[in-house]
Amino acid sequence: MTHPTWRYHNPVDVRFGVGALGYLGTCTAGRDVTVVTFPEAKGLGLVSRLRAILGTSLVQVIDRTEPNPDVASLAPLYRAFWTERAAGEVIVAVGGGSVIDTAKTLMVGTEDASFEALVALLATGKAFTPHRVKPLIAVPTTAGTGSEVTPWATVWDRAAGRKHSLHLPQTWPEAAVVDPDLTTSLPAGPTLAAGLDALSHALEAIWNVNSNPVSDTHAVAAARTVLATLPELMHDLNNRELRTRMSQAALQAGLAFSNTKTALAHSISYEMTLRHGLPHGIACSFTLPMVLARASGIDHGRDAVLARIFGEDLGAAPARLTRFLEELGVSTRFSAYGVSTDDEARIVTAALDGVRGKNFIGAGAAPSKADPA
Amino acid sequence: MTHPTWRYHNPVDVRFGVGALGYLGTCTAGRDVTVVTFPEAKGLGLVSRLRAILGTSLVQVIDRTEPNPDVASLAPLYRAFWTERAAGEVIVAVGGGSVIDTAKTLMVGTEDASFEALVALLATGKAFTPHRVKPLIAVPTTAGTGSEVTPWATVWDRAAGRKHSLHLPQTWPEAAVVDPDLTTSLPAGPTLAAGLDALSHALEAIWNVNSNPVSDTHAVAAARTVLATLPELMHDLNNRELRTRMSQAALQAGLAFSNTKTALAHSISYEMTLRHGLPHGIACSFTLPMVLARASGIDHGRDAVLARIFGEDLGAAPARLTRFLEELGVSTRFSAYGVSTDDEARIVTAALDGVRGKNFIGAGAAPSKADPA
Repeated sequence: MTHPTWRYHNPVDVRFGVGALGYLGTCTAGRDVTVVTFPEAKGLGLVSRLRAILGTSLVQVIDRTEPNPDVASLAPLYRAFWTERAAGEVIVAVGGGSVIDTAKTLMVGTEDASFEALVALLATGKAFTPHRVKPLIAVPTTAGTGSEVTPWATVWDRAAGRKHSLHLPQTWPEAAVVDPDLTTSLPAGPTLAAGLDALSHALEAIWNVNSNPVSDTHAVAAARTVLATLPELMHDLNNRELRTRMSQAALQAGLAFSNTKTALAHSISYEMTLRHGLPHGIACSFTLPMVLARASGIDHGRDAVLARIFGEDLGAAPARLTRFLEELGVSTRFSAYGVSTDDEARIVTAALDGVRGKNFIGAGAAPSKADPA
Repeated sequence: MTHPTWRYHNPVDVRFGVGALGYLGTCTAGRDVTVVTFPEAKGLGLVSRLRAILGTSLVQVIDRTEPNPDVASLAPLYRAFWTERAAGEVIVAVGGGSVIDTAKTLMVGTEDASFEALVALLATGKAFTPHRVKPLIAVPTTAGTGSEVTPWATVWDRAAGRKHSLHLPQTWPEAAVVDPDLTTSLPAGPTLAAGLDALSHALEAIWNVNSNPVSDTHAVAAARTVLATLPELMHDLNNRELRTRMSQAALQAGLAFSNTKTALAHSISYEMTLRHGLPHGIACSFTLPMVLARASGIDHGRDAVLARIFGEDLGAAPARLTRFLEELGVSTRFSAYGVSTDDEARIVTAALDGVRGKNFIGAGAAPSKADPA
């Protein structure tokens, strides 16, 4: 089968490995730095490690970030950042997906320094040319989000019951510094959710109308590693080798879906997070067996890529994936999360019609082969 | 095994597929264009196709390029380009490795527009900040060089019996447009040499002190595809599907060695090209079985990656690779190219001590783990 015309582009300069945090100074290269991190970073000694590495170039630390950043909490943070004189030349985000997403919204400066102006631009759903931009260096402290190698961020608006996506050619991180040792202190719950987020990114990049041979290569490597590593890691959270493998899998899943975006499982997840409060990593992964069953048999090329992960018998793969999740304590049934059967059907139908749902190869008669960037 | 700290960075925006040439106008985005191509491009109708796509933004065509570009022929080309008023805002290189390498030297403008000043900078072997740079879009017409996704070019100086490497952060192509249909008119000889060049890039990226999981992923995919596809293609040169697979393999080999550079087989090749006139693709591949035999057994991690290509029995792999080359009509013996046994030993010893030779995992007691960019 000849692949159709495709595009792959990921300009992020990646440094990876135990001790890679030591390269942060090489990446910031003397520029003044604002660190964006999570509230607990100071207590964990992370902020003082960053001070030791960055010295006097560290001019500001923002740590009042929140999980799943909402317009309500981002607005004051944003205004303070863009009206503050000593805001630095480069942003260094040290944290999980929520911290990196928060930092991405800070990258893009509006003319009047108001976050409302940015939200108004995001609400159009269209690309725009930012008034000004500060470069970002992303340092993930979880293994899952992949946000360190993607150009987009999710901004929630719980009051309005919706979400916005920030996605511009200018919002690729300049560099990613992935040090698996930063993930070692992560407790079991977030470790599991992050790991399953990575698995979801990998699989969603495969059953995707925007898939291509380069994204496939990364996605297969990532999915195989998560399936082989995550159960072992959950019994041995301090194992540096297993943490390293999961960081690498999360990175490669990020390299995959950075060019395909996500698909049906993520489309379903948004309502599960917004209305049922499910952590993102669980919300986007508990449906993977169901989506895998729907994806199989639609396209020979896609089946062949999935077989590189699950083996030739794709018919047995959903049950295998269900067992994998249930053994990790994650139920694959909507009812376990308080969703009725009627509501489940409605959620899936709506998700298939969502922006990400339309990336799913099984979404409809004529899936749009949109240019992914 | 924990991988040591590594870096991967490839900022090239890749568009791939039959018909991808149609995206060239999207990539140049209205900027004035100088096309750099090969003398036969006009007769093949390629220049008129480019005119149709680029319209009035095509302001200049340079087609007096030469294979293995030498300082002697580059100097007048370079001066004309940088002193010409209508030199365009962006360079589009349409050709094989020699054309793309020629275009890369044109990217970097010296203060006095003299090529001699550039050669003097290259001769130092050190990075420098260019006076001015024009962006490059690379459109390969062969499947092999990978030059469309690397930041470096080889500049030969036959009079002095040496070669220079251009390699700057500024010399990454901005974009690569890889259209397999452009390779279909390539005759058997250059098709074979280019295909083996890609195989060499893939394998040299693996037995390399700068290897990393991302380069490995690309290298394994590339090598497997070349081994499975090239013999079939040599019997069916007009087969679009096989041409597409080889273009993809060459691209992925490029993505691999763009971050590792080459190793022993390429180090050997330079003297074979300079003194014995061997085409680059043959010069850098006829020794692959010998280098594979030397590479095996040095490092468990490297052996495991090679086994993903050659199977678990690495002891049998060199003979298999020899058979693959001989069946393509490429002798794996130095004597076939007029090199005596004594000279062979001297060439290999000297190559192990060369800049690229030192990237080989078997090069010595303490291979330098140099940062590849």
